[in-house]
Amino acid sequence: MTVLDGNKIAGEIQEKIKKEIDSLKRTSNQIPGLTVIIVGDNPASQAYVRKKHKIAQKLGINSRVIELDKRISTVRLIKQIKNLNQDQNVHAVLIQLPLPDTFKTWEILDHLDPGKDVDRFLPINLGKILLNRTEIYPCTPAGVLVILDEYQIDLTGLNVVMVGRSFIVGKPLASMLTNRNATVTICHSKTKHLAGLLRKADLVVAAIGKAGFITPDMVKKNVILIDVGQNFLYQRKDVIKLCTQSQQNKFEKKGYAITGDIHIDAFKKSSYYTPVPGGIGPMTVAMLMQNTLLLFKQKLKLE
Amino acid sequence: MTVLDGNKIAGEIQEKIKKEIDSLKRTSNQIPGLTVIIVGDNPASQAYVRKKHKIAQKLGINSRVIELDKRISTVRLIKQIKNLNQDQNVHAVLIQLPLPDTFKTWEILDHLDPGKDVDRFLPINLGKILLNRTEIYPCTPAGVLVILDEYQIDLTGLNVVMVGRSFIVGKPLASMLTNRNATVTICHSKTKHLAGLLRKADLVVAAIGKAGFITPDMVKKNVILIDVGQNFLYQRKDVIKLCTQSQQNKFEKKGYAITGDIHIDAFKKSSYYTPVPGGIGPMTVAMLMQNTLLLFKQKLKLE
Repeated sequence: MTVLDGNKIAGEIQEKIKKEIDSLKRTSNQIPGLTVIIVGDNPASQAYVRKKHKIAQKLGINSRVIELDKRISTVRLIKQIKNLNQDQNVHAVLIQLPLPDTFKTWEILDHLDPGKDVDRFLPINLGKILLNRTEIYPCTPAGVLVILDEYQIDLTGLNVVMVGRSFIVGKPLASMLTNRNATVTICHSKTKHLAGLLRKADLVVAAIGKAGFITPDMVKKNVILIDVGQNFLYQRKDVIKLCTQSQQNKFEKKGYAITGDIHIDAFKKSSYYTPVPGGIGPMTVAMLMQNTLLLFKQKLKLE
Repeated sequence: MTVLDGNKIAGEIQEKIKKEIDSLKRTSNQIPGLTVIIVGDNPASQAYVRKKHKIAQKLGINSRVIELDKRISTVRLIKQIKNLNQDQNVHAVLIQLPLPDTFKTWEILDHLDPGKDVDRFLPINLGKILLNRTEIYPCTPAGVLVILDEYQIDLTGLNVVMVGRSFIVGKPLASMLTNRNATVTICHSKTKHLAGLLRKADLVVAAIGKAGFITPDMVKKNVILIDVGQNFLYQRKDVIKLCTQSQQNKFEKKGYAITGDIHIDAFKKSSYYTPVPGGIGPMTVAMLMQNTLLLFKQKLKLE
């Protein structure tokens, strides 16, 4: 079994992005601008946003985080978005999800300029994926494709079982893999005989948010396993059952551990797998930086 | 085996649409307007357009066909579309596909107002399907869902195999069926072991344009068969091999016969099936009328 090393690949991609930003800065006298809006005080969201901000800064991106109180009105939040739409120095805007329950997600998101939609969640951007008319993809699906490409895994004719049908991962990635000539089955909570379908898969993508849900008996030998889950565990008994030794050690210090949707013992049957942490997680962040750069370059082209 | 009678259901839907248009005409003093643009002289396209026009008129829709020479310039074609975008009496515009080879399809289509996109092929409208944020669907996928609903076929947990990955049928319908809790596999020309996948399917949708491609040995007993194919046959030997007696009789008079992507002998193994002709074809036309009415009602709501 070969580890698909997200940390390594993400690092290499970030190196390339940094060089390209340096070079574009010299030729255009401009740098890409990324603004992240975060509403409320969800600690997981705050941690993600801090991480994105830190890496963006490191790559030479003009990175800004707008932290808003969860009691902000819909009207004022939309006003913020419209200001960013107008701002010539902002090429990419990310509205950190989930928004607090008091907001209707799409009532907010629909106000973002699709040309600055770095997450690629707006309908026009998702539709272009279905039509195979774009090179910019949502960050997590993009990270999955790039890591498979980096390890030269040919997708043509592979039977892929995608577990999860969200618009953030499952549905766009299914379209992207279909466009790349894989045969994709989308499974979800209402799927019957999931284990039977999984055992036939050449490649499994798990994006459901249930720790260790896919067990070794559900996958065939030499399967490729892509684990999109990032589940936080706080109980020692769960950590012992579901986490690697390295995560178990961290648990003793931190009081939590992270594991994916695929049980760590299933990885032993695989030909390739993405670990959690260190697989799709860092790839997603790298793709956010790449999308920021792509949107910046699109804007330079228009000038 | 039960025939899913597209002619009957389409007729009933058209009756309902006609009544609703009559009633809206009385209350609003307006009627829905549908304009079809056809470029060039493809005889199949011309026949489809004539049929749509005739039915639209019958239902009380203000139907208009704009026939354009295939040598029209891209600029002038786009101008036509922009005029229709502005026209208050036109609520629905259909640009008949395929356009002649000299045009880049999206260079034309992207100029259509998404609010008048009756085919629902524009990115923003396809994206909303993926996001489960719309009630208006492309005509053929909509026809498939409606006929299944009319015969009270519950889609939850069904294993669906979709053969064909076009943006006109396969991909949007896969999203729609996933949103309705089916487990969908999208197959295509690069799929390996297609027959094996088909034999596991509870419901097969064929949308590939190859006469009689899916044979009885490829499907399980009591499968539900949805045949989107409309293939024209001009050789007697093909007609004898692939068509029903009624189509064979027509061939003697007309010089051609129509058959689907599913071999007629496969229907005998099914619990339900849509015949060709008389299945999804008339449903597609009925859905075009329904979409025209829905777009008209959206506009009335805004007034």
